Amino acid sequence: MAVAGERMAAEIAEQPAVFDAIVARRADLAAVAERLMAPRPRFALLAARGSSDHAALYTKYLIEVLLELPAGLVSPSTTTLYGAEPDLTGVLYVTVSQSGGSPDLVEATKAARRLGALTVAVTNTPGSPLAEVAEHAVHLGAGEERAVAATKTYTATLLTTYLLVDAARGGSGEAAAGLGELAAATLDGSAAAVSAAAARYRDIERVVTTGRGYSSATAAEAALKLAETSYLGARAYSGADLLHGPVAAIDAGTGVVAVTSKGHGGEAMRDVVAAVADRGAEVLAVGSAAGEMPASARIDVPATAEEVAPIIEVLPLQRLALELSLARGGDPDRPRGLSKVTRTR
Amino acid sequence: MAVAGERMAAEIAEQPAVFDAIVARRADLAAVAERLMAPRPRFALLAARGSSDHAALYTKYLIEVLLELPAGLVSPSTTTLYGAEPDLTGVLYVTVSQSGGSPDLVEATKAARRLGALTVAVTNTPGSPLAEVAEHAVHLGAGEERAVAATKTYTATLLTTYLLVDAARGGSGEAAAGLGELAAATLDGSAAAVSAAAARYRDIERVVTTGRGYSSATAAEAALKLAETSYLGARAYSGADLLHGPVAAIDAGTGVVAVTSKGHGGEAMRDVVAAVADRGAEVLAVGSAAGEMPASARIDVPATAEEVAPIIEVLPLQRLALELSLARGGDPDRPRGLSKVTRTR
Repeated sequence: MAVAGERMAAEIAEQPAVFDAIVARRADLAAVAERLMAPRPRFALLAARGSSDHAALYTKYLIEVLLELPAGLVSPSTTTLYGAEPDLTGVLYVTVSQSGGSPDLVEATKAARRLGALTVAVTNTPGSPLAEVAEHAVHLGAGEERAVAATKTYTATLLTTYLLVDAARGGSGEAAAGLGELAAATLDGSAAAVSAAAARYRDIERVVTTGRGYSSATAAEAALKLAETSYLGARAYSGADLLHGPVAAIDAGTGVVAVTSKGHGGEAMRDVVAAVADRGAEVLAVGSAAGEMPASARIDVPATAEEVAPIIEVLPLQRLALELSLARGGDPDRPRGLSKVTRTR
Repeated sequence: MAVAGERMAAEIAEQPAVFDAIVARRADLAAVAERLMAPRPRFALLAARGSSDHAALYTKYLIEVLLELPAGLVSPSTTTLYGAEPDLTGVLYVTVSQSGGSPDLVEATKAARRLGALTVAVTNTPGSPLAEVAEHAVHLGAGEERAVAATKTYTATLLTTYLLVDAARGGSGEAAAGLGELAAATLDGSAAAVSAAAARYRDIERVVTTGRGYSSATAAEAALKLAETSYLGARAYSGADLLHGPVAAIDAGTGVVAVTSKGHGGEAMRDVVAAVADRGAEVLAVGSAAGEMPASARIDVPATAEEVAPIIEVLPLQRLALELSLARGGDPDRPRGLSKVTRTR
């Protein structure tokens, strides 16, 4: 008899080893990065869906800040539904899909290559249709993901694209070096705080997640994880957008998960956390700067360079989604109606 | 004594006249469009926050499909928090802000211009700081927006950018010609169905909105409007993303607003509506193809060319947000803690 959530729990726990394996392949990734940057692209486009779309958002920040290339997230439907044929000469086109099997991403990538883009597939499935149609393929090597809620392939994508972008700017991967060990310490060290947070949020129906800068991706991914495992009304806002309007809908019945890691993004979250705390929300601050925030609960995470913080700060949030799902009587491994590859066009 | 929601109601009702006024200025917009397309840009970037960000998403589809230029939404924080300095020579950079006063958008636009982009501000406030820093400024002319929930400036942005993009491809604005009249007919014709939907959704706590293609923007804007006026856990998914995972969290306790207008986007929604209806959700189909969907309730909207459908199909959804807020005992004109301009960096 299967234990509820055991697949998701196992895959969350595998992440330290997955990180070590990816860091060990840094030289291979650097070789790919070299081919992607010669000649330097005009700009970058990223295509993805679901959790991979949040990983792509993180990669977009990396490309914009570390490579100083403009970057955008693709709406695959402009190609697959409307047949747009833009000139993509000199464009770096990165498609992220753990399965490598989504037909719309395969079709959009094939079209991008035909239209002149330099295409790269980032997948967890060697020999997948996506890896076949792209000019370059990068394998995540995270091992098969069997849980329906993506965890290890999400963080594996972050770390892999970090190493690619870092190599592309001539870096040595320094900020990523100890991340496997740090991930293990984070999962161990946050266990009690995560369980306490799951108990606090057990009866809440509305959760807002928020972050800024690199951590916007963490906020988006945490909201999706909570929504898809726990039947919660969870949505993410950039801290800036939240203050712009939706803060109106935050009251004592709202759980607010504020992703606050040390650095420019976390610093810019201080006013956001104060504003939502002011409105009586149950604020849970998560990250290496959580201790500095006026929150009602905190999950501390070891500090890293800001650009790799999303790889670590999401770990306790994955555990929170798992534990909250179980606390609410669900089984994140068996949500009804969900399959790993969805055949959209 | 102010009547609850009277500002929002008045501004929703002004939209037919606002549309007529914008269409009457088509020649001016065409003159701006000519300056934006000579020489043809390499690609387009769009910067915005809140409702304007959803208007920018619509504009992104227009640019990609009708102009066949790649386009991306900007994360202003890459400039304002991290100081990225990409080469933006030959890039069309469109900033959308009804107030024209958000400091981070002003700063990002100023930086974009310095980095070589051709900058255009789309605002509802002539002489605003944003209009000052951009090379070109387009005025929405929607009249002062006093309600905290943006309605007329949202649709005015859609129509204005439609006319800009249509002129840029050599169009004559044909699809937009009768939109003022059509908007009036839509508001009148949908009143009973909107009130019925507000009654059905009165006690629901979790709403998911969904659409595809051009209508993704409508779904995103509807979710924001519901979240900020009605203290609801509302979030938007592209129809493709919804089937990819979050469909797991949809059950009989979830209201699903499916935006389904005639065309490629609406057609691609058929499977999505069937999947959520299958899971017992309260499905409300809104749009000119609503009658063809297996929904439990419908708000029919007159048919238009698909690329202008978002300008019309959002109108009953604005009314739904207003009526739902009132039905739940709120006042959308007086949500706590919300001001029209937020000073984020």
